[in-house]
Amino acid sequence: MSKPTNDTTFFDGSIFLGIDGGGTKCKAVLMDHNQTILGVGISGPGNPVYGVELAKNSIVESAKIALEQAKSKYLTLGDLHLGSVIAGIGLAGANVPQMYKEMSEWKSPFKAKYITTDLLIACLGAHNGRDGAVMISGTGSCGYSYVKGQSTIIGAHGFPQGDKGSGAWFGLQAVEASLLSLDKIGPKTSMLNFLLEELQVNNAEDIVAKFASKPSSIFASVANVVFLAAQEDDQVALAIIKEGAEYINTMARLLDDTTPPRITLIGGLTAFITPYLDAELQLRLAPSLSPPEVGAVLYAIKQNALSARKIPNRC
Amino acid sequence: MSKPTNDTTFFDGSIFLGIDGGGTKCKAVLMDHNQTILGVGISGPGNPVYGVELAKNSIVESAKIALEQAKSKYLTLGDLHLGSVIAGIGLAGANVPQMYKEMSEWKSPFKAKYITTDLLIACLGAHNGRDGAVMISGTGSCGYSYVKGQSTIIGAHGFPQGDKGSGAWFGLQAVEASLLSLDKIGPKTSMLNFLLEELQVNNAEDIVAKFASKPSSIFASVANVVFLAAQEDDQVALAIIKEGAEYINTMARLLDDTTPPRITLIGGLTAFITPYLDAELQLRLAPSLSPPEVGAVLYAIKQNALSARKIPNRC
Repeated sequence: MSKPTNDTTFFDGSIFLGIDGGGTKCKAVLMDHNQTILGVGISGPGNPVYGVELAKNSIVESAKIALEQAKSKYLTLGDLHLGSVIAGIGLAGANVPQMYKEMSEWKSPFKAKYITTDLLIACLGAHNGRDGAVMISGTGSCGYSYVKGQSTIIGAHGFPQGDKGSGAWFGLQAVEASLLSLDKIGPKTSMLNFLLEELQVNNAEDIVAKFASKPSSIFASVANVVFLAAQEDDQVALAIIKEGAEYINTMARLLDDTTPPRITLIGGLTAFITPYLDAELQLRLAPSLSPPEVGAVLYAIKQNALSARKIPNRC
Repeated sequence: MSKPTNDTTFFDGSIFLGIDGGGTKCKAVLMDHNQTILGVGISGPGNPVYGVELAKNSIVESAKIALEQAKSKYLTLGDLHLGSVIAGIGLAGANVPQMYKEMSEWKSPFKAKYITTDLLIACLGAHNGRDGAVMISGTGSCGYSYVKGQSTIIGAHGFPQGDKGSGAWFGLQAVEASLLSLDKIGPKTSMLNFLLEELQVNNAEDIVAKFASKPSSIFASVANVVFLAAQEDDQVALAIIKEGAEYINTMARLLDDTTPPRITLIGGLTAFITPYLDAELQLRLAPSLSPPEVGAVLYAIKQNALSARKIPNRC
């Protein structure tokens, strides 16, 4: 750890912790009330669906890393500890009532904590705390809008039955079409060659071995194969992209019904899929302003202000 | 257990045990060399991929049940025990070299044992030990031919990346299309109503909960939804069936290249999908003559005869 610099910035008021607890990693950010980033941290899985204790440990671990970073940077934060921060915690499993209950009842080391879904913090982050809609195309896919206090979710049904237009969905289409091509049952596709190269294998059995009983993220890791083949004008790949893009186009139309002031596409597939969306939608897509963990801070600031108003002033 | 009847049929020569070891159950049949069924037994999972010890236990258990049944029926089999039967064992995991090795090295309680794949015993059963081809559409799907000692496998890549035209594949298409319909992203389909009724749920979240992190057999259990909707002329269901049937039509054409004297469609989807296959293929499809466990007996009889020829007669 580097020694504290001689930065003596004075932080007035509360320090906020933003947590984005996902299935593979947990991200933390420490900010003051002016939204200055003081420190960041990353740890292991933070989705309580895969283990409540593991999630709690990951949250605390990432918070500690962010805290150490902040203290190493700002001398005036020397006294800062976990018990002095107000946490906003967005969790992929928070929509499951039992998970929400268990995480809400957690006696965390933080001064206060506000639990919500990964979708709300993503949306608050993308629009810097204002109303708006997000479409997410990462390992999974879904649409979400938060307008006038009202949440709307579209999709988010998981893999393989849902998550169309996501990395896992594109990857599965690529593997399926490649195997059909290899078996001479489906049309030829250059996705097969890209896939064999990507996986460093040379037959169907070895392709299958890479995916059998694996999580959806393994399929998402080969989604690029579809877009590589499309650049070579591969018709099978282009048909897959058309289907995935049409799903996102339709999702945008449904989100429009909730009258969001802004709409944003986020997630790892954003750069790949955007050029294939409806031209009109491409023009309308607003850039994401902040990542989900910053959205979690914005959520904590808002909830903290609301809760302060509810408590009568004792002075 | 019922008392032995006074049947004093005399069994000349060896008694054979046929085993069909699948992922959910293990089937056993005891037969004499004239292919008279003496007894049958069913036990738990017999696919060594899901546990080698479990598979061995299931094989022995199903064999014991078949043996007891045979002894209760035929007085002359009173002395029969596991150590006096010659076993043909077809296993879903036998194509995996490590599984084949472990099962081959097993010091089984049988007099002799011959291990092979579930596909070969299914094919031998369907054609009563003669050359032929089978297309299987059960939980999974694949094509297989055994002609002049040569095995050919088509598909069999597993779920969700392969197994097109199988129960799991039809079930997944039904769930996917129903969720899209529910979200108003995909076209209306009566599969949604059949699915909600079948699962006794009324929203997307509860549909998803039935399938999340479940084996492919759970998807296969709702494959009927596609065929129910098709009977009502549901266009989404009919398009799914067309795609699945086309896969099987193409598989038949590829199997034809191996010049099988007979071709048979087996598995739980057979009755559902047959009416949608190419008319010419429907006419050509030969009925299955015996189940896979009987094919395992035929395999044991053949291998036993071959092995007897290799050992010099000591008399």
